[in-house]
Amino acid sequence: MTDLSPRLIGLDWGTTSCRAYLLGEDGEVLDQRLGGRGVLALTQSGNREAAFERELAELCGPWLERNPQLPLVASGMVGSNQGWVEAGYRNLPVDLMSRPEYLTEVATAYGPLFVIPGLFKEGRGQDFPDVIRGEETQLLGALPEAPHGAGGSSAKAQPAVVVLPGTHTKWVRLEGTVVTDFVTSMTGELFGLITQQSIIARLAEDAREPDIAAFDRGLDVAFGRDADIASTLFSARTLVMAGQLEPTAVKDYVSGLMIGVEVERFARSWMGEHHEATICANAQLGSRYARALKRAGVRSTLAPEDAVATGLWRTAVALGIVGRSGIAGAGEPIDKETP
Amino acid sequence: MTDLSPRLIGLDWGTTSCRAYLLGEDGEVLDQRLGGRGVLALTQSGNREAAFERELAELCGPWLERNPQLPLVASGMVGSNQGWVEAGYRNLPVDLMSRPEYLTEVATAYGPLFVIPGLFKEGRGQDFPDVIRGEETQLLGALPEAPHGAGGSSAKAQPAVVVLPGTHTKWVRLEGTVVTDFVTSMTGELFGLITQQSIIARLAEDAREPDIAAFDRGLDVAFGRDADIASTLFSARTLVMAGQLEPTAVKDYVSGLMIGVEVERFARSWMGEHHEATICANAQLGSRYARALKRAGVRSTLAPEDAVATGLWRTAVALGIVGRSGIAGAGEPIDKETP
Repeated sequence: MTDLSPRLIGLDWGTTSCRAYLLGEDGEVLDQRLGGRGVLALTQSGNREAAFERELAELCGPWLERNPQLPLVASGMVGSNQGWVEAGYRNLPVDLMSRPEYLTEVATAYGPLFVIPGLFKEGRGQDFPDVIRGEETQLLGALPEAPHGAGGSSAKAQPAVVVLPGTHTKWVRLEGTVVTDFVTSMTGELFGLITQQSIIARLAEDAREPDIAAFDRGLDVAFGRDADIASTLFSARTLVMAGQLEPTAVKDYVSGLMIGVEVERFARSWMGEHHEATICANAQLGSRYARALKRAGVRSTLAPEDAVATGLWRTAVALGIVGRSGIAGAGEPIDKETP
Repeated sequence: MTDLSPRLIGLDWGTTSCRAYLLGEDGEVLDQRLGGRGVLALTQSGNREAAFERELAELCGPWLERNPQLPLVASGMVGSNQGWVEAGYRNLPVDLMSRPEYLTEVATAYGPLFVIPGLFKEGRGQDFPDVIRGEETQLLGALPEAPHGAGGSSAKAQPAVVVLPGTHTKWVRLEGTVVTDFVTSMTGELFGLITQQSIIARLAEDAREPDIAAFDRGLDVAFGRDADIASTLFSARTLVMAGQLEPTAVKDYVSGLMIGVEVERFARSWMGEHHEATICANAQLGSRYARALKRAGVRSTLAPEDAVATGLWRTAVALGIVGRSGIAGAGEPIDKETP
């Protein structure tokens, strides 16, 4: 019989939404609240701290009243300079299962909320600096198992690639649970601007359901030539003008074109010897990346939708906020930095 | 002594503005009005035709009252389905100095206004359909001389490449005055969306003057790797976060990055054996393209700023609207299509 006692509350608190999870032994999701307000909405009010505190009470109050000692952990933009408290970054390479040098906490009416730091890549030579905040937690939950680190038996430190599509898609390389490299691609944000605000938006019409043939046609363009976005995108307009593309197919065509350009380039010049990738996204977007990766000769698997809940649990274990026995603080004490 | 009698009124009537030219013998600019309202503003009023007619009177009324018989010719989006009258397209290849099969005219209080058709490329195989409207006239004015067509002596039918940077940059291949190919790149529109509305816009600050070093740094990125926009653009944010790029340098850095990606790709995979190009743009934007083309090993010359006035004159001559003697209708009669 499974132990259903709550052990942890985990919050995936991003720019546009907050997802709260009540987690039991081994990170099992006992309950969830997915519609919380994100950093953008909460920072528009006058008193930022009070707005975050109210949202926490709104989402997790009932859970905490029944379980007053539950530890609280959060990841995402809540820890950015736009968020509740600035949680800093850890420099690559980072073992996601190791404890950071310091951990940021913010005092709440329910006790301290631990905020997971982001990851920072310095970038040398041709490589740019880059940042991740929130995805590192999804990432840890997306890994099929969570063996500790790259050390120890080499069988445990498998190299892997994880793609996290979204507004700012992250392409991440790992060895075991150690993040060794990542790159941000702005495909998602550009797709939004193009299909909502550019000249392409003017003739695009909403479709009743996704048009996979149009998406594949976009992939054809991306994989069929030395394509970039700017020089191929106008075709979404001219093909409609020439009667060769339906207005309702425009968005899916552009989606295929843009994801195709991104995936073709990353598979060719960034993935190196990797021919497998894990995709961490909702099923609809994930299947698009899977289709594009297949074209590039890369096998992919879709991580479970609640990967972030698993990641929050695993991080809390690594931080010593919950022990494997489920008792808070079972690990060694950690240095804290309270702003 | 030059003959200063007006022979033609030419209108470069685009999406956002209208430039009117009073032209004398050989297309000399005798007077100009550059601040007229474009198609977008004029079509927002209830009676579209009346709005265009009023704008014409506003810009050219004084010229026409003194010279009531002056022929009128216009190019640009005024001839689109969003404009005053739909002027159709000519299919490639098109000799810009030849008369189209039919010419659209619209009746005005001052007599007929002839509207120059755009160019249409069908697009076969890997090639997309594409359209030009207005740039074909600038193009003709940008050519150093205007020998007729690709036929006749081969010395006259020089192959050439003309770049017309703007919201939708056009890359055009010609043989003499015959347009043989063109491609539209949306770099300009994407640059606007990115620097005004994306996450990059949030940290970009206006600079007092153009930062050429930042522009060149963007070119370095574009030419230094297999770059595309989506996967390199986030660097404009992370370099600022890492203290390696000033917020006032962001826009010029992004400009260099985007123009660099465009020019590198066109020079490599579209220009073929061409190592020279004519740029048709204002001096500020033109010099940026010249810098990028130089990196790609392409020599460039900047066309005169009033290329469009020259193009309107040359087109009017080709259409027989003005004769070389300056008398309207000196050419053979042409078939007209009035909507």
